[in-house]
Amino acid sequence: MADEAKILTDLLALRFGEQPVSDEAADALGTIPETWLQLAARGSCRHFKPEPVAPELIETLCALALASPSKSDLQQRDIVIVDDPAIRSRIDELTTTGSLAQEWIGGAPSMLIFCGNNRRQRQIHEWREKPFANDHLDAFFNAAVDAAIALSAFALAAEAKGLGCTPISAIRNHAEEISELLGLPAHVFPVAGLGLGWPAFPEPRVSMRLPLSATVHRNRFNEDGIKEAIDGYDRRRAAAQPMTRQRAEDRFGTAEFYGWSEDKARQYAGPERADWGAYVRKRGFRLD
Amino acid sequence: MADEAKILTDLLALRFGEQPVSDEAADALGTIPETWLQLAARGSCRHFKPEPVAPELIETLCALALASPSKSDLQQRDIVIVDDPAIRSRIDELTTTGSLAQEWIGGAPSMLIFCGNNRRQRQIHEWREKPFANDHLDAFFNAAVDAAIALSAFALAAEAKGLGCTPISAIRNHAEEISELLGLPAHVFPVAGLGLGWPAFPEPRVSMRLPLSATVHRNRFNEDGIKEAIDGYDRRRAAAQPMTRQRAEDRFGTAEFYGWSEDKARQYAGPERADWGAYVRKRGFRLD
Repeated sequence: MADEAKILTDLLALRFGEQPVSDEAADALGTIPETWLQLAARGSCRHFKPEPVAPELIETLCALALASPSKSDLQQRDIVIVDDPAIRSRIDELTTTGSLAQEWIGGAPSMLIFCGNNRRQRQIHEWREKPFANDHLDAFFNAAVDAAIALSAFALAAEAKGLGCTPISAIRNHAEEISELLGLPAHVFPVAGLGLGWPAFPEPRVSMRLPLSATVHRNRFNEDGIKEAIDGYDRRRAAAQPMTRQRAEDRFGTAEFYGWSEDKARQYAGPERADWGAYVRKRGFRLD
Repeated sequence: MADEAKILTDLLALRFGEQPVSDEAADALGTIPETWLQLAARGSCRHFKPEPVAPELIETLCALALASPSKSDLQQRDIVIVDDPAIRSRIDELTTTGSLAQEWIGGAPSMLIFCGNNRRQRQIHEWREKPFANDHLDAFFNAAVDAAIALSAFALAAEAKGLGCTPISAIRNHAEEISELLGLPAHVFPVAGLGLGWPAFPEPRVSMRLPLSATVHRNRFNEDGIKEAIDGYDRRRAAAQPMTRQRAEDRFGTAEFYGWSEDKARQYAGPERADWGAYVRKRGFRLD
């Protein structure tokens, strides 16, 4: 077996807690691109060196991220680079408080906010004197998806350079105030923040993923054995990456076995961002 | 200037129709990762060789795509690989008809559908006996964003291997029938399809992007000079990549100068996917 193919199967076995690509299949893949090994090994970064990230590096990454696919070439996403200390410190305050504080966010030397932008499209209609005939859910959806695609590409480009990233969806817990801080106009909304910096440790934390038997389907959606698949995943993951604290113990007590699915069920047993719809409508979107 | 830095600035100049990263800035970037050059040069593929893509290659790409970030580690995305000829042929029929037919879709040897999946989360709540307290817009939004992040990573992983991709949002024009074809249950919905294959030509079509002055902001959203920026972009893009046909000429006539913004304003002057919201609600989502 070729060396690179072996590295790939080892990384994927660690990633999925089982081997999603057999040795034979991996050998048949031919050359293994560097990007693959990077993706297989990637993880969010929680501990950063204090050194800042050079502005030209951040700008290059923005340019690369915006080269990613965009729905119908509409380019409905913007990036806000936050480096004003007052704005940054307020965002840190807003995102590092709450039930399970994400204290690592404050440690990321740089921060970017990925936004959906349907405003430009509406402006173009005004300037080109054409009616905008799509004031419904699709307009909001396309902009959100466009921003997510760019965020994904940004993270991969940053990680390719050895930078670490931590996506921050907690900014949407305070969408109204964040929008005000960043001066976001109507029809522009934050999708996620991204903390960025040089990792303090050489290896990121690989988060184990659900088995492909649960998430990849052939022709027809198939959930035969899904409960058992998730039970198995919970066990494998807890064995490899035990969780160090249980969520909402005051409400649910201390579980003897605490796996991924118990953690996620506890997380969404309490309301999160129940005001997100109201916020999006206030931004001017109709979600019909 | 280092060779790789020069290649990067040249590619980005082509991509943005102006130089977003100066020679001095590029020189200060140090080593240029292969992933950067690939991202800078990427584009959707419209012409494929007829040879199929090996199943183990597609599975590897799925595994890599699902290693991308996921909101709160919820993993709310699934991939459906379509290789049943009857299902594929019906999807081709549905997506290659319409106002501006996307005839290239039928030529992609492989097809995948990236879905948002909020069903698993709700099942976990049932199995772990916890109430699901988040039946509002956020549940739908998170799953859509998760699918988009995976699609972006899939495309980059595929392109790193020399494969070509064509994202297909037209599947949402027929979301109801596509869902039936793929047997998608409640709370699972298609975000986009992706045609995949080996490119017939060595170079993909690089789609010029809006200038960073319009899409990247520092601390505060800034749209000073946005109209002029878009006018300039229209001109640069038309000079480098003239459009070969005008949209909806019967309605809007033939424009003397036909740029990107005119094209996009014409596209969304007619309703597209006005039933998307109704479909999503029928899938079981509340969008409050």
